[in-house]
Amino acid sequence: MELTAQQIAELLDGTVDGDPKASVHTIAKIEQAQVGSLSFLANPKYESFLYTTQASVLIVPETLVLKNPIAASLVRVPNPYLAFSELLHTVDQMHNGQHSKGIDSQSFIADCATCEEGLYVGAFAYIGKQVKLGKNVKIHPQAYIGPNVEIGDNTIIYAGVKVYKNCKIGSDCIIHSGTIVGSDGFGFAPQNDGTFQKVPQIGNVIIGNKVEIGSNSCIDRATFGSTIIKDGVKLDNLIQVAHNVIIEENTVIAAQTGISGSTQIGKNCMVGGQVGFVGHISIAEGSKINAQSGVSKTIKEKGKSWNGTPATHFRESYKTMAQVRQLPQLEARVKELENLVKELLERNP
Amino acid sequence: MELTAQQIAELLDGTVDGDPKASVHTIAKIEQAQVGSLSFLANPKYESFLYTTQASVLIVPETLVLKNPIAASLVRVPNPYLAFSELLHTVDQMHNGQHSKGIDSQSFIADCATCEEGLYVGAFAYIGKQVKLGKNVKIHPQAYIGPNVEIGDNTIIYAGVKVYKNCKIGSDCIIHSGTIVGSDGFGFAPQNDGTFQKVPQIGNVIIGNKVEIGSNSCIDRATFGSTIIKDGVKLDNLIQVAHNVIIEENTVIAAQTGISGSTQIGKNCMVGGQVGFVGHISIAEGSKINAQSGVSKTIKEKGKSWNGTPATHFRESYKTMAQVRQLPQLEARVKELENLVKELLERNP
Amino acid sequence: MELTAQQIAELLDGTVDGDPKASVHTIAKIEQAQVGSLSFLANPKYESFLYTTQASVLIVPETLVLKNPIAASLVRVPNPYLAFSELLHTVDQMHNGQHSKGIDSQSFIADCATCEEGLYVGAFAYIGKQVKLGKNVKIHPQAYIGPNVEIGDNTIIYAGVKVYKNCKIGSDCIIHSGTIVGSDGFGFAPQNDGTFQKVPQIGNVIIGNKVEIGSNSCIDRATFGSTIIKDGVKLDNLIQVAHNVIIEENTVIAAQTGISGSTQIGKNCMVGGQVGFVGHISIAEGSKINAQSGVSKTIKEKGKSWNGTPATHFRESYKTMAQVRQLPQLEARVKELENLVKELLERNP
Repeated sequence: MELTAQQIAELLDGTVDGDPKASVHTIAKIEQAQVGSLSFLANPKYESFLYTTQASVLIVPETLVLKNPIAASLVRVPNPYLAFSELLHTVDQMHNGQHSKGIDSQSFIADCATCEEGLYVGAFAYIGKQVKLGKNVKIHPQAYIGPNVEIGDNTIIYAGVKVYKNCKIGSDCIIHSGTIVGSDGFGFAPQNDGTFQKVPQIGNVIIGNKVEIGSNSCIDRATFGSTIIKDGVKLDNLIQVAHNVIIEENTVIAAQTGISGSTQIGKNCMVGGQVGFVGHISIAEGSKINAQSGVSKTIKEKGKSWNGTPATHFRESYKTMAQVRQLPQLEARVKELENLVKELLERNP
Repeated sequence: MELTAQQIAELLDGTVDGDPKASVHTIAKIEQAQVGSLSFLANPKYESFLYTTQASVLIVPETLVLKNPIAASLVRVPNPYLAFSELLHTVDQMHNGQHSKGIDSQSFIADCATCEEGLYVGAFAYIGKQVKLGKNVKIHPQAYIGPNVEIGDNTIIYAGVKVYKNCKIGSDCIIHSGTIVGSDGFGFAPQNDGTFQKVPQIGNVIIGNKVEIGSNSCIDRATFGSTIIKDGVKLDNLIQVAHNVIIEENTVIAAQTGISGSTQIGKNCMVGGQVGFVGHISIAEGSKINAQSGVSKTIKEKGKSWNGTPATHFRESYKTMAQVRQLPQLEARVKELENLVKELLERNP
Repeated sequence: MELTAQQIAELLDGTVDGDPKASVHTIAKIEQAQVGSLSFLANPKYESFLYTTQASVLIVPETLVLKNPIAASLVRVPNPYLAFSELLHTVDQMHNGQHSKGIDSQSFIADCATCEEGLYVGAFAYIGKQVKLGKNVKIHPQAYIGPNVEIGDNTIIYAGVKVYKNCKIGSDCIIHSGTIVGSDGFGFAPQNDGTFQKVPQIGNVIIGNKVEIGSNSCIDRATFGSTIIKDGVKLDNLIQVAHNVIIEENTVIAAQTGISGSTQIGKNCMVGGQVGFVGHISIAEGSKINAQSGVSKTIKEKGKSWNGTPATHFRESYKTMAQVRQLPQLEARVKELENLVKELLERNP
């Protein structure tokens, strides 16, 4: 890779501010970049590094006003993170010109499976009976696709993913290693003798299009009906999605969050890491849930931010935290009042 | 599947209230059910749907008193959830008449392994030396059964489970994909130079009968002796069970909970999701631990409910939370007192 | 195994206090040990068991002063846990004299991979193109080593581990089953229509020497550059390490902790279980973070202990918790003041 500021501006439909011939051969974080590096500024938290970075070219917001002169050539664009992401796509494609294709002789494919062109099935991958795989589907080594599963065009299933029987995965999805789709929901009926009887989980999981799921996450099958993850949802690593949960379009959920059974998360929500949702509630569209929150009730107001356990409005939760921190002062004020009142009582026997 | 209210009542030993010929061909949640659906009511939270559901047959508590007339035929039983669960078993068996059997030619079985009748070993499964597998054991594709492991009759090991050497799993267990049994406990001895020396983990894991473990959970082997999970325990997904932990009979633990080393959880406990237990404590039988709690001390009282970090009695924790929410009012009362006392002081110079 | 107190003292460079011929044939916890067992005392919490244990030989601190006579022979050493750990190494090696070697015929190895002597590649393991494996590397069954990965001498990769392309793992490392190294970081650029565009993750993961990682953990590859885990780091099970995180030397992190993107954890830190770190912060060396804490800001002071969400100094957090528990008393004091002030006002109309 060897690109000039001018070439980058053309690729990204931006404008150059500085030397258009400044050239880069690698990509680095703004705080670590050396001469010859391309970097970008999207998070204002990193703005001070503008004046110290050795990067040769920087992608910055078009509205950026410099407080001091800087060495790097700037490429100004409306949305630096998005522009940078597009550039990474270009670089990524340069590196990965050839995609895996073909069926490895050490794989297992039941003869009644339906496969279309462009399919890759890696070594030690297992494709069960009646499976339907769309065009350009990539099943990496050691993945397991159970009987009667359907997977849409261009979906990538990485090494070691397990998809239980009857589940459906849409087109243009990416599922990372170690994720389990369709294992039994956690349902047990208590018996009088203290033991539990398993409630069979006869439903499935339905995943829409353009969904990405990270590593080692778990999406349980429904008791009956379907656990549903709709188009454009992005799930991080180590996430728990219980039986009969529904996650609506374009919701993004960070790592280690858990969603209990039958809860419904609205569209365009952003959920931080290590959040917990109790079962049988619903969360309004556009909700933002802060990391480590515990959500115990249905949220009906759309587009609000929530924090804490039990989760309350973001501002309220911060006010409460501040008041808790002020408790020593409050106690001191009460102490002072007690002294004054004692004195007053002595004066007024 | 096509069943009438009368047939369902006979299967479940219940009584019909309404048209005994009402027939169903599918199963649905009460709030989503269409004509021709069977549904059930167990959680009172859903009672209002009784009067709006289009389900044709509903399984309900025998004591249910209707407040309005309804369209569906009712099947009255003592415990609707349990009855429904039994019905699902029947449906499930109708769907899965044939269970997997036989040994796939693309599996690996060390010649000194002991296998009994009804065994299934899927493609790319690995069975190590001296392994003992009981009757009707099902080892699904890509599972790993390490040397000297024993597994009892009728146990199902789903695709990709890994069981390290010397571990023992009882009869009638189910272990879901991605779960790891018997990896090394987390034990390191600090050295003077700041590095850590690994403490070998030479123990094993012993799992009793009728245990179910969800997906991507981790049960570490003991430093020495055994990590023990007793009969009837049910563990959800993504759970951490550290070395030398003991979980007593019929305890149920929800997803993403972690139990630190050498802690002992009593029998018949119910533990919510994302709970953490510190090491070297014991929890009395019948304890209920609310989701996201942090349990830092031994619990000796049996059968109580606990909440929060550090976990306290459920009621106490809710009282504390209410008081924290009342802090603004308390501060206002102190402010008012300060004004009044100031006034009194001015009157009494 | 059959060892006398005298032999153990010689192995551990300790001194015998009691019968040097007392012999043991098994290892047990001090509170469960039977005659013929070896046990040890390191945690003072267990000191009362000294006087009730039936263990025949006990490894204890050399400075231990007995309050009562005891039955067991003592082996006194400076650091009992470390000594015990060394003894376990000896026992472990007696049990595992032979290590796995050779390449199973049912594995997949791309012909351009570079392998050195002592290599083990188990059944159904996958070794991609251009992979470089050092001396005595052990790749257990069903592991996946992606293209262009490098692994140093003596490293053990357990069954089912997945290592994505271009990642580097040092020497003398241990990675347990189900752990995923190098899956894509969680990066998506929001679009105007509410959807998200994937930001390609073109970096890698670099793991140093003598690193141990537990089961089912996830180490994401960097967006660009590297996610870095330095020498001597020990990670437990089910841990999330996001893209571009750096963990410095000899830091130890317990299970289910999550570290968000670009955060840097200093050397010699000790992090409890279920802790969460927000992104883009750095944690000073020697920090101790209590279990379940939420760390939301950079920590600059070295060697301090932190607790709670948001994390504060350990002492401060415990003081705050105590004050919260005292809220009922504080409210009662305010109530009493209100009564007294009312009385005073009535006396001073």
